[in-house]
Amino acid sequence: MPQVAETRREPVPMNGVDTPVLLATINAVGAQPELAKFTFRASQKWIAGTHSQGRFETFFGAGTNHDHKHDVVYDFDHPPVLTGRDNGPTPVEFLLIGLTGCIMAGIGNIAAARGVQLTEVTARVEGDIDLQGILGLSKEVRNGYQKIRVSFDIKGDAPAEKLRQIVEQGRARSAVYDVLTNGVPVEIEIKA
Amino acid sequence: MPQVAETRREPVPMNGVDTPVLLATINAVGAQPELAKFTFRASQKWIAGTHSQGRFETFFGAGTNHDHKHDVVYDFDHPPVLTGRDNGPTPVEFLLIGLTGCIMAGIGNIAAARGVQLTEVTARVEGDIDLQGILGLSKEVRNGYQKIRVSFDIKGDAPAEKLRQIVEQGRARSAVYDVLTNGVPVEIEIKA
Repeated sequence: MPQVAETRREPVPMNGVDTPVLLATINAVGAQPELAKFTFRASQKWIAGTHSQGRFETFFGAGTNHDHKHDVVYDFDHPPVLTGRDNGPTPVEFLLIGLTGCIMAGIGNIAAARGVQLTEVTARVEGDIDLQGILGLSKEVRNGYQKIRVSFDIKGDAPAEKLRQIVEQGRARSAVYDVLTNGVPVEIEIKA
Repeated sequence: MPQVAETRREPVPMNGVDTPVLLATINAVGAQPELAKFTFRASQKWIAGTHSQGRFETFFGAGTNHDHKHDVVYDFDHPPVLTGRDNGPTPVEFLLIGLTGCIMAGIGNIAAARGVQLTEVTARVEGDIDLQGILGLSKEVRNGYQKIRVSFDIKGDAPAEKLRQIVEQGRARSAVYDVLTNGVPVEIEIKA
């Protein structure tokens, strides 16, 4: 989402964004910062082997709990080459679409706030991982991705430089980009 | 996945894991480390506003490309309280189920390698985020989660302490846990 200060003209709805409502929301949160505190929640259930199911749960935000419109449950598994049954994508792949999905949500909003009509935005993302880490075969190799590469392709009614700046601002305001590049404290409790 | 050294008995299939094949795979990779190099790939397409779709693509590993068994496309959106239309979960929520999905895949494998029959594994996960960061309202507030909390509940035919150690080893060998807690370099290219 964009900074209010970046808006250059009277905001009008575009790109599927109700731009006046977006800017009013930002101003409302600016006036009452406790509205900005959100807690997202999910649950996971083991099925068999490397197969589990994740469910998106009720989340808290703007002072109250919210249900998602749809009950969404996704399958996770490893592929046969990693001795799974491919009942779903691998957990590490969810990080990739989480990253591009987050930057892209920002792009839609930022373009609308800057009065740019987008016609097409696509991205490719890939991550390199050396499984010697998680297989316990090397202490020098980390468990996770060693590098993630993203390529955005953006088209709209603005000069290339302005379109590039919209993607750059999407990155600069992305929650997932921040978490993936800077890390976050994770606390784990175990009941057995 | 477990270290070979942790296996205490003749491996037998259990928990939906073909344990002998799992251990043979780890040994094969140990003998030929270039098999461990994987690249996971995804693509993203903007639809409108904060709504986009992510698709899991062909991945490279063990020296060759692999297709997923199913063509999987997931919707992303913001909820109405964040001026979206809730066509799908938010990108930050994908990080939560990616984390629990990854640790849980390890739990299935590790339990099988240790000869423990699991009966039930569930997890709850939540992440706190202060949206003053992504809304551009505060320079002191980060964009991403400030903290993630996970709670695992594990049941099986082993003492509580042994079950707890299985979850702990799942965390210690988790690719997503590593990425989320330590971060990863992300390189972004923009074509406009």
